[in-house]
Amino acid sequence: MEHISDSTVRRLSNYLRVLDELDREAEGLVSSQRLAEKSGVTPAQVRKDLSYFGSFGRRGLGYSVAHLKGEVRAILGLDRRWRVALVGAGNIGSALYAYKEFARQGFDIVAVFDDDKTRAGQPLGELVIQPMADFERVCRERGVEIGVIATPARDSQQIADLMVRVGLRGILNFAPRKLFVPPAVALRTVNMAIELESLSFTLAQAEHARHGRRRFPVG
Amino acid sequence: MEHISDSTVRRLSNYLRVLDELDREAEGLVSSQRLAEKSGVTPAQVRKDLSYFGSFGRRGLGYSVAHLKGEVRAILGLDRRWRVALVGAGNIGSALYAYKEFARQGFDIVAVFDDDKTRAGQPLGELVIQPMADFERVCRERGVEIGVIATPARDSQQIADLMVRVGLRGILNFAPRKLFVPPAVALRTVNMAIELESLSFTLAQAEHARHGRRRFPVG
Repeated sequence: MEHISDSTVRRLSNYLRVLDELDREAEGLVSSQRLAEKSGVTPAQVRKDLSYFGSFGRRGLGYSVAHLKGEVRAILGLDRRWRVALVGAGNIGSALYAYKEFARQGFDIVAVFDDDKTRAGQPLGELVIQPMADFERVCRERGVEIGVIATPARDSQQIADLMVRVGLRGILNFAPRKLFVPPAVALRTVNMAIELESLSFTLAQAEHARHGRRRFPVG
Repeated sequence: MEHISDSTVRRLSNYLRVLDELDREAEGLVSSQRLAEKSGVTPAQVRKDLSYFGSFGRRGLGYSVAHLKGEVRAILGLDRRWRVALVGAGNIGSALYAYKEFARQGFDIVAVFDDDKTRAGQPLGELVIQPMADFERVCRERGVEIGVIATPARDSQQIADLMVRVGLRGILNFAPRKLFVPPAVALRTVNMAIELESLSFTLAQAEHARHGRRRFPVG
């Protein structure tokens, strides 16, 4: 199988959103044109992306929505469930715990950890927040495969190191900090700060352009 | 000024994280080597990225942490405040409202909207959640410049259209859906579903590789 780039995987995720929607609207078939239009890419791109995985479409008829959705879900590893430990039960952690999309995509939060004295021992939904001292034991007992980091930046690398040591295979990081893990561990970062800064950069540039100013000396 | 790519802006955000940390540790100077190492890029990349904006460093001494931090903040448009309207007061919206990084980066949430009958009229922090019917009037009265979408996917495009019509200049989208806006409006999407799926894709591929299976027929 050819190497599948990160951007292909992201487009597959977008196609899945569109297929979910078409499925809810009880659409039976979708053309590559329609799928492309709703995903914001070209029909050629859709056909190329889907061709990595075999040929699903029938010429002139398009793709079966239900079948293609099942195939894309399998490609993305969403046809099974993953056992997840959440570290950090503050605002972001609590929102993640309550985030229905998480479970809908096969990610089951089976343990929550926080060393904050006001949180450890308290309930979070059906779980009890546990201290980090229990992390290794609980992860082993509950067969945890993925760790989610929702702590302040200063604690995040240390927690990632612990997750690697305990043998977790994937980490989803919400802390605003670049983390370092061995290549065998899959790491994804959701960095709201970076998105915010990218937005304010664009707005600031537009503002400077509107006022005919050059913001920065070019040395 | 040369065009600054999205990936440069993202690296600048990362440098800012590192500079914030060095500043808290009362470090006065930083070399491009050290900044590079802590950011996970090469020293040449650091020097190239910073050279877009003029020359900050002194040969052999490195960069002044405080000065460089101020410059990077200005580049990213973080030296001013932005007035933000939040649409959606569910789990994600409430977490965003409570997210301190938001205000710390100059984004002030000045209005919150939600049409859910159990939410409209209720307090959220120091604000009262308002119905969407008031969106246009309140945005004009409070000088809102940026909209944040934290609603279910099905409502998100309609809300983006409204934000564009009302004249907002930037949109930060947390709904798991690709949105379409005119080029003059800056749009950033934080898609947790896509990060999750990218993670599960990588884990599933690794698992199939470990079992010596080829997951997908190549047609």
